[in-house]
Amino acid sequence: MNIAIIGLGLIGGSFAKDLRKAGIASELLGVETSREHADRALQLGLVDRIVPLDDALRQSDVLLLAVPGDAIMALLPKVLGVVRPAQTVIDLGSTKFRLAEAVRQHPNRERYVAAHPMAGTENAGPDAALEGLFKGKTVLLCDLEWSAPDACKTALEIFHAVGLKFEFMNSEQHDRHAAYVSHLSHVAAYALSLAVQSEEKAGYAVPRLAGGGFASTVRLAKSAPEMWVPIFQQNREPVLKAIDAFLERVQELKRCLEVNDFRRLEELIREANQIRDLL
Amino acid sequence: MNIAIIGLGLIGGSFAKDLRKAGIASELLGVETSREHADRALQLGLVDRIVPLDDALRQSDVLLLAVPGDAIMALLPKVLGVVRPAQTVIDLGSTKFRLAEAVRQHPNRERYVAAHPMAGTENAGPDAALEGLFKGKTVLLCDLEWSAPDACKTALEIFHAVGLKFEFMNSEQHDRHAAYVSHLSHVAAYALSLAVQSEEKAGYAVPRLAGGGFASTVRLAKSAPEMWVPIFQQNREPVLKAIDAFLERVQELKRCLEVNDFRRLEELIREANQIRDLL
Repeated sequence: MNIAIIGLGLIGGSFAKDLRKAGIASELLGVETSREHADRALQLGLVDRIVPLDDALRQSDVLLLAVPGDAIMALLPKVLGVVRPAQTVIDLGSTKFRLAEAVRQHPNRERYVAAHPMAGTENAGPDAALEGLFKGKTVLLCDLEWSAPDACKTALEIFHAVGLKFEFMNSEQHDRHAAYVSHLSHVAAYALSLAVQSEEKAGYAVPRLAGGGFASTVRLAKSAPEMWVPIFQQNREPVLKAIDAFLERVQELKRCLEVNDFRRLEELIREANQIRDLL
Repeated sequence: MNIAIIGLGLIGGSFAKDLRKAGIASELLGVETSREHADRALQLGLVDRIVPLDDALRQSDVLLLAVPGDAIMALLPKVLGVVRPAQTVIDLGSTKFRLAEAVRQHPNRERYVAAHPMAGTENAGPDAALEGLFKGKTVLLCDLEWSAPDACKTALEIFHAVGLKFEFMNSEQHDRHAAYVSHLSHVAAYALSLAVQSEEKAGYAVPRLAGGGFASTVRLAKSAPEMWVPIFQQNREPVLKAIDAFLERVQELKRCLEVNDFRRLEELIREANQIRDLL
């Protein structure tokens, strides 16, 4: 089958690498609005050709939408407006509910499969593409009852080819859980970065003191706003709830220090330690 | 020289491995109050012999204190009470100011070198010991003006042997910076773990949704209270200040979502991204 990837950054580029390796694409087409990224993607051999969106729509059996959330929101209804009966459109974005609402009544809704591969790094652009990024990771497939069986089958084939395991949820559940398990991590990392940078104005202590622990906790603070502002925008209410729950627990830990209740602090740490059993 | 390591967990055990490899110890002695850890340390070949503390004091040229902060606080004055003029005592704890205060007037203060190797993992016990843990990392040496030149030289030799780079600070600076760069990361990770576990009661979504990002941000929440309660206790005031700065930045990010100020959110994320330049 001919596969077109819209957006050749971290996610789109990594799909390109793994799909090529899996050998399931007769041709890999790329659509990329940034001229620089387009040139780099060709240099890296990520796709066979860079084409305009219209050509990709005409010449592909499958379209993978791997652009930021706001661009997916603008693109999906347009793509569904011209999609052919045998074509499959898959979005790979991090939020799902508002997108689902936006196309719920679309006459070609069934050609679309909503998917969120739970894999990534803090880097962006074609150079961030990694072979094997998805191997052993999970892809969440949302609202599959609204997608045509053959479109589901095509999506599963593609995800299987890059080594992803499947989980199923509706888009509302997805967004609520993603707010806690993915989006909140970014809020915490951004806030940690901002707090440390305010204190360590001249960057005096960070390079001296930063062990692997700080680097690990703050890693996601390197993630670009182009990707993350749309996520916070589209998943605003669940993220606000998750932030409140997080603030409550930070306050609880703080209170233990304020009143010297180190027995309670120990209990909380032991409870926090139980994350070992879930990861 | 004969080196005695008090505490054969992650830090002590890793020093044992690397010091043996470097070949600078004629004999490696271990002191370990947990019988189970003592047996395991011998099985793993971390040290040549496990001995009581008194024997370690008599038979060693250098003592490395690698026990939790509260145990170091209890141990150091006792050890300095019987230290010989040619012996060197080095503590490897994560907080420094209160310990410095506790022994400032001690007649044998100059035999003691305060050090904090900025390396570790979220694991504990002899099985957590890692060869090469310190390679290329930094050790912070505090208040060296209170240590005898030959004691400093011995400490530098040992740290050089395991691949650590040197930085120098006074203990008050150390604790203030460590509160931001190390201890605050743990507060953030513990709170994230607690918030996610409260929401995801049955552990339903975490294993399904957790990508590498969440795992990275929450990793430190696996760190044991035996190690971390004493750190928060001994560095209480600087950590409270760091928590307040962190809370302020979380609130600031939250406000952007509340009032839909996504332009300001983008600015904050760009500022947070600058942590790239410091790491």
